[in-house]
Amino acid sequence: MRPKIRLYVDQPLDQGQSVVLTREQAHYLFGVMRQGVGDAVALFNGRDGEWRAEVADAGKRGGVLSCSAETKAQDVLPDLWLLFAPIKKARTDFIVEKAAEMGVRRILPVQTEFTNSERIRQDRLQAHAIEAAEQCGNTCVAEVAALARLEALLRDWPEDRQLVFCDEIEAEGAGSSALMGGLAVPGAVLIGPEGGFSEAERKKLRALPFVKVLPLGPRVLRADTAAVAALTLWQQAVGDWA
Amino acid sequence: MRPKIRLYVDQPLDQGQSVVLTREQAHYLFGVMRQGVGDAVALFNGRDGEWRAEVADAGKRGGVLSCSAETKAQDVLPDLWLLFAPIKKARTDFIVEKAAEMGVRRILPVQTEFTNSERIRQDRLQAHAIEAAEQCGNTCVAEVAALARLEALLRDWPEDRQLVFCDEIEAEGAGSSALMGGLAVPGAVLIGPEGGFSEAERKKLRALPFVKVLPLGPRVLRADTAAVAALTLWQQAVGDWA
Repeated sequence: MRPKIRLYVDQPLDQGQSVVLTREQAHYLFGVMRQGVGDAVALFNGRDGEWRAEVADAGKRGGVLSCSAETKAQDVLPDLWLLFAPIKKARTDFIVEKAAEMGVRRILPVQTEFTNSERIRQDRLQAHAIEAAEQCGNTCVAEVAALARLEALLRDWPEDRQLVFCDEIEAEGAGSSALMGGLAVPGAVLIGPEGGFSEAERKKLRALPFVKVLPLGPRVLRADTAAVAALTLWQQAVGDWA
Repeated sequence: MRPKIRLYVDQPLDQGQSVVLTREQAHYLFGVMRQGVGDAVALFNGRDGEWRAEVADAGKRGGVLSCSAETKAQDVLPDLWLLFAPIKKARTDFIVEKAAEMGVRRILPVQTEFTNSERIRQDRLQAHAIEAAEQCGNTCVAEVAALARLEALLRDWPEDRQLVFCDEIEAEGAGSSALMGGLAVPGAVLIGPEGGFSEAERKKLRALPFVKVLPLGPRVLRADTAAVAALTLWQQAVGDWA
């Protein structure tokens, strides 16, 4: 039977490998979830697949698990990033959770001209990405980057990575086969803030050689909806749904 | 200049038409938003397009607006329903909001074998759908139906409406052109609860002539993510993104 509890650990996983729990993990596993010596847990670390591990030692402030069998091979995700402008807390959390679920490799919060947020809690967003991976059974964990200015990111952009610009002003040809056919890997999807992009930003983005415009239909979508919609189209066209 | 405030009203809209506000709307418009006589508001009712209306009378418990010009023609949305199994409150709210944004006509909460919820607040969910339409500039409002048993809905299903069954166990061929080519209008998308569908439900659904199976990729998606992803694919293939 598959273990019901699934934990991300930042340690190597291999046959017979011992894994030392952090204080928080021990509290969760033994205190909250009432597990004890001999009980099985699923572990993943984002690189060594998923392992079944049994509790070898359980204490209030720590514990040790021992890996007994690989239960799932490591997924290799399509090389996709998501760039988004942070919005209200709940919706920002949601975007990170959704991107992690949908198999994005890197999540890059960006500051645009119309972005309200001056800061994000990178550690909290990273924890959301880990929790999404734990709950959805993914073996990969999206990496949340520090907040950066869009301008700076574009200046140092790796030119072989296509940047898919979801321009809400452009509604024609959304999801048309001509457009979808032009999507490429490695890729990145860029979602704007509430209020969209400035005229200067739109002009600049459209002039960059690695940018591709992808309209998202005739209705204005909120940023979190737009993110899931764009990631769906990408995964379907060139990602691992294709 | 476009009015910044956009309100849904359940009254006819036409040139010179007077619109009487409810007590709540008057409180919002005059109390919270500090509007007064002569100020302009955008109105829509889901059938007569969007109208610019000026405040003719403002009181504490009511008010009257007068329609002066049509600012947007009425949208006619592709005939799409969303059936979903209610989950936790915040995620249920989210699904309704997202479906309204994405242009679904009817939202039908369904009770499946693994659905936890025994009840929903239909009026609250309808208010969410209206708020999404107000904020996203839609002229249509999704109609939220009462909670019904999936079994009963299937028994009385209109046979000309394709039911797209998003089966999370089926991962192969997600978004493939063969599958996407088979989508049809009028349509409906069915999203399961956490824990998915029972074996009996899956078997029954797959045997129905109007059901089409649509896989949503290799990862398990939460219900709210799955809803947006499936609606994106549908709108792209046969809806108004096509």
